[in-house]
Order: sequence, then C-alpha cells, then structure tokens
Amino acid sequence: AQQYRITLLPGDGIGPEIMAVAVDVLKVVEKKFDLQFEFQEALIGGAAIDATGEPLPAATLDVCRNSDAVLLAAIGGYKWDSLPSHLRPEAGLLGLRAGLELFANLRPAKIIPQLIEASTLKREIVEGVDIMVVRELTGGIYFGKPRGIFETETGQKRGVNTMAYTESEIDRIGRVAFETARKRQSKLCSVDKSNVLEVSQLWRDRITKLGAEYPDVELTHLYVDNAAMQLLRAPKQFDTIVTGNLFGDILSDAAAMLTGSIGMLPSASLGASGPGVFEPVHGSAPDIAGQDKANPLAQVLSAAMMLRYGLNQGAAADFLEKGVLQVLQNGARTGDIMSVGMQLLGCRAMGEALIQV
Amino acid sequence: AQQYRITLLPGDGIGPEIMAVAVDVLKVVEKKFDLQFEFQEALIGGAAIDATGEPLPAATLDVCRNSDAVLLAAIGGYKWDSLPSHLRPEAGLLGLRAGLELFANLRPAKIIPQLIEASTLKREIVEGVDIMVVRELTGGIYFGKPRGIFETETGQKRGVNTMAYTESEIDRIGRVAFETARKRQSKLCSVDKSNVLEVSQLWRDRITKLGAEYPDVELTHLYVDNAAMQLLRAPKQFDTIVTGNLFGDILSDAAAMLTGSIGMLPSASLGASGPGVFEPVHGSAPDIAGQDKANPLAQVLSAAMMLRYGLNQGAAADFLEKGVLQVLQNGARTGDIMSVGMQLLGCRAMGEALIQV
Ligand SMILES: CC(C)[C@H](C(=O)O)[C@@H](O)C(=O)O
Ligand SMILES: CC(C)[C@H](C(=O)O)[C@@H](O)C(=O)O
Repeated sequence: AQQYRITLLPGDGIGPEIMAVAVDVLKVVEKKFDLQFEFQEALIGGAAIDATGEPLPAATLDVCRNSDAVLLAAIGGYKWDSLPSHLRPEAGLLGLRAGLELFANLRPAKIIPQLIEASTLKREIVEGVDIMVVRELTGGIYFGKPRGIFETETGQKRGVNTMAYTESEIDRIGRVAFETARKRQSKLCSVDKSNVLEVSQLWRDRITKLGAEYPDVELTHLYVDNAAMQLLRAPKQFDTIVTGNLFGDILSDAAAMLTGSIGMLPSASLGASGPGVFEPVHGSAPDIAGQDKANPLAQVLSAAMMLRYGLNQGAAADFLEKGVLQVLQNGARTGDIMSVGMQLLGCRAMGEALIQV
Repeated sequence: AQQYRITLLPGDGIGPEIMAVAVDVLKVVEKKFDLQFEFQEALIGGAAIDATGEPLPAATLDVCRNSDAVLLAAIGGYKWDSLPSHLRPEAGLLGLRAGLELFANLRPAKIIPQLIEASTLKREIVEGVDIMVVRELTGGIYFGKPRGIFETETGQKRGVNTMAYTESEIDRIGRVAFETARKRQSKLCSVDKSNVLEVSQLWRDRITKLGAEYPDVELTHLYVDNAAMQLLRAPKQFDTIVTGNLFGDILSDAAAMLTGSIGMLPSASLGASGPGVFEPVHGSAPDIAGQDKANPLAQVLSAAMMLRYGLNQGAAADFLEKGVLQVLQNGARTGDIMSVGMQLLGCRAMGEALIQV
C-alpha cells in the first residue's frame, strides 16, 4: 500500500470535532483504495497559544514540513481576540502559509444542487455556478514591507502597509491559474485595480504576457469593484478567477457566500513543492463548539482536496465527494443547512452517515 | 431668490444626455423653490483629453473651486483605455477628488420597491435594504506613497502601492460617518482588515475611540472579507458602513448591486468646506451613448443629493426624490430597468415624464 504522512491540525472551536469525522472517513478511504495514512497531530492557533504561548510553535512547522500533506480544521475564538496581533491565532495561519511557501490558494465555490435553496440569490442566477478562485497567498499587502504604525513629523500616528508584487511572484501564481483553468472550462478572469494601482498594472501586464503561452485559455480582466458586482449580478459568467492576496480574500468569500452554504466549502493551499494545507473555508464557530452541532462536510471535502491536489489520489477524492453528495441526497443535514423535510443530524451522526453510504 | 453657482461636468459617453435631463429638472426646482442656479460647464475625462490633452485641465479645477457645487455625469470609454494611466479619464476623477479635498464619499444603496424584482437576490433578503456606505476618498492606497514600478536588485520589476492612514485622516472620515449614522438608524459598522493589516489596526483603534463621543450610535466592526459575505447573506443588518478608500470602492459597488438597478444610484463626495461633487455610481456606458437609451434617474438623484448635502436645500431634494419614485410608480422605465407591463421610454422622454409629475 502507498504510504502517506498526514499532519492533522485540529485547532480551535469546532475544529477537533470535524477533524475526528474527517479522520474516520479517511480510514475508510485507506481500506478501499489500498492506501496507508500515518496521522500525526500538532498544535496551532488558540490551542497552541494556550499550550505554548505561541500560535505556531516551531515543532508544528517541523512536523508539517516532514509530512506529505497537512489537514487543518479551524483556528481562532473570542478568547484570544485581545492578544497583540503577532500572538493571535491568525498569526499562526499566516506563519504556516509563509513557512510552507503556500503561494497558491484554491477556493472552489460550487453550487450543490441539493442545497441551492440556501443561497440568498435567486435560483436562476446561481443554478450551475462553479467558480474556482485562485488567490495568491504569500505576497501582496499581507506580507509587504514597510508595515507598522509609525510617528509622523507632526507627532501623530500613521498606519502603513505595502501592497507589492514582483514579476516572478505574479508569474508563478499566474501559471497555477492558467493550468487550473485548463482543467476546467478554460476561462480565466484576472482581477486587479490597474486603473488606480501600479502594482495592479504590473499584475495585468504579466498575466497578459503569460496568456500568450496559454492560447487555449480565454483570458479576461476585471477591476476588483466590478468583479464584486459581477459576482452578484451574473456569477455564471465566471469559471476560474485569479487575483492577489487581499482581493482574493474578499472575492473568494463573496463567491463562497453565493452558494449559501459556507459550511460545505473546502480550500487548498499549495506551494511549488512540499506539503499543501487543506482546510474548510468556514471558521472555528466557538459558539457551537463541543456541542456536536458542527457540519463536518467542508472538512471531509477538504480531505478530498488533499487526496486530489496533495496526494494525487483523484479516484479517492471522487469517492469522498460522491459520498458527500449522496448523504445530502439521502436527506441528511446538519443544523446550518437544515431545511423542511430533511433529517437533522449532529456532527458525529453525519460522520456515521457518510461512512454508511 | 437664493443664488448658486453650479459647475456641470457632463464628461463622456452617456454623460451629456443624462446631464441635459438633470439640468431640465433643476430648472423646474428653481421656479418651485425660488432658487437661482447659474450653470457653468467644464471639461473632464475623455472629453477633456480630446480637447486639451489632459483629463483634468487646470481651468476645470478653477471653475469647480469657484462654484457652490459640482454635478458630474460620467467619464471614460474604450477610446482612452490604452493611454498611459496619468493621461486616462480616471486620472481626471482622482485629480478632482484630490484637488477639492473630497475626503468623504457617501454612497447610498437603497432598494426601490418598484424595482425590487431587478435584484438578483431573493425578495425577502433585500426588501427594505437601506445602506449608506461612507467611504474615505482622498487617502489610503489610492494616494499612498511610495508607489510605482521599481527594479529590484535581481533586475526584475516590482509593483508597489502603499495603504496608509494617519489618525487625523481616520478621525475626520469617522466623524462624518458617526454624524451620518445619527441622521439614519444610528448604527455604524466600521470595516477593516485589522487581523492582518497595521493600517487597519490604527483605523479600528481610532474609530473605537471616536465612538465614545457618539454613545447614541451603535458601533460594530467587521473584517472586509466577512463584510462582503454579510452584504450577500443578510444585507438588512446594515445601516451605515464606514471604511477606507479601497474597501469602500469594492463594498459600495457590491452594496449597489444588491439593488439590482445600478442605473438608479447617486453618490456625493464632500470635503471639509468648498463644493462637493455629485455623480451617479454607474459609468459612461459608451456602448449606448448618443442613442437616447440611457437612464437619467441616477443623475437626477445625484442632483437631489447635491441639493441636500451641497446646498442644504432638503425640501427641493425631497421633491426630486419623490418625483423619481412617482414616475416609476406610473410605470415609466428606461431599458436597463424595463420589466413586463411597464412603459419603455428613452432618456429624453424619461426626463419629460419627470417634469410632468
Ligand atoms: C484569518 C485571516 C488571516 C485569513 C485571511 O485573511 O487570509 C482568512 O480570512 C482566510 O481567508 O483564510
Ligand atoms: C474609476 C475609478 C478610479 C473609481 C474608483 O476606484 O474610485 C470608481 O471605481 C469609483 O468607485 O468611483
């Protein structure tokens, strides 16, 4: 059997509950596809702060580096919100992205037919929506320098961040995006603000040049404000979207919300080599933590993305994705996606239902 | 009669057509409210580039400075898209904002009951939505330095922009926002990305401090990615939103699109003193320019905002806003907002219908 080392980062809030379901499901995958997973658990986020004082202990980064893939659940919670920012759970996540050089973040926003009523948009607008946002994840204003709060000559404070991209940073995320589009409908929309920002002018320039190498991919460009509007107006026009770190943060969340069921959405963060990190789009939901109410399906779909993009086990990924659709088809629902006539299950029971199908 | 000097900037595309309607309507207002408008027209955007080589001739800025209010239609078009950025129509708009120190941009996104079907969101989600986005307009990443495309040590290009705010910049837009909220439902939501950006930490800090001076206004904070989601998920939770230049650009467009009828939305850009600029949210629509198809109602509603916020003539503003609702109630529609059973009118005919009611 093919062997893989998988680091589990359950994190905070509902993290441990949904991770437990994903692990159970992965054990079924092991048998069915003759794989062998060696799971190792490590600390991140609030859980790591409580245990070690740091949101990303060096030991965690080491364990991750020495694995084939990292499955992350969720981090954060009210408890740690008042800490200084470099000691907050988010810093652990940003440190993990930087530490593993995960420059490409893939965020699918695909309507699940069984849950289409959950969308706040009209059925005819969102039916069939299937968007992949490719977000740059280790550059742009998230990491640009100078950054900080400085004193001006007049003695008042000035907060400063720097949005910067080099040609090679743009090219490498651009390539991932064109390759991704190729495996989909071969339509790529690049989003920037090049009518105002020089960093976006360079972005548009490079993506346009790169486009010449992918003549089979239809390339378009939108300004970020217009892209936000178009996502609301006519989301079906989009196939693959590529954009920088900050615009990707905003637009991928807007795209996710089109589906109406953010508890169902996975993501993948990939580097040039080394392990990727796979995690749900939703947060740690501290208000329902420990109550067996969480929806574990985004975590299971994140495990599917791990199989597909991290371990190159496409058939096993298909199997998990079909399983999720099947339990929904059977009427199983957690509270966040509950609707009339369906069967309300807790987190654990949803996991068991998945293993049955 | 009270006299006002009003600068008209018709700009490009459909600009001149919709401006003509607004002027006709303002002539009715003059008589009815015993006011006297002295109109002066000036060049901006593509029209200015064609005539003078510059998107904002010095003469235009002078005329604007010497007026009580500026009514702008729309700028831009394919024709000027390939010019270097400092010579493009957008540069004229940014120059006007900076030149008149218009630091506060008010963008209402209010559902018009007669047009609610135009929204891509479900009726129960958007019914009653009435949001005012207060966007900072002369700071942040739009104007921060350093900016440009530079060579790195390794000889590759690096695009750089700077997102910066000083305490006093935050305070002055914050005050406008709290005052605006006070005249509405007294709920203010400040949007930032303080879990990642230092400039946002300073922003949140100052807005929070300022909140102590407005104990009657309920202040909340959201991260920008979450704000984009919440606008889609449950837009009725918002009353007044305050945010920086870039986030405001994106969120105000998303909020506008909730209404489904962007051809109906006005905006106001205000400074500490001196004339404000009032303009529709929509663009210059070069594809339908000169065909008498444009919707002049956002321009008329911009004239109403000018009367209210620029000239302190609230009753006249009410009169225009009621007139717009009345023509819609009567079934008059331009092509962009047409629906079954309504009467399709051109731009000029819509203007005449307005003057009749
Ligand atoms: C938690 C936060 C730092 C993070 C981000 O902004 O990248 C989150 O919003 C995300 O999108 O993964
Ligand atoms: C045209 C462009 C420079 C402008 C902006 O980004 O501010 C526009 O999008 C707006 O919102 O008024």
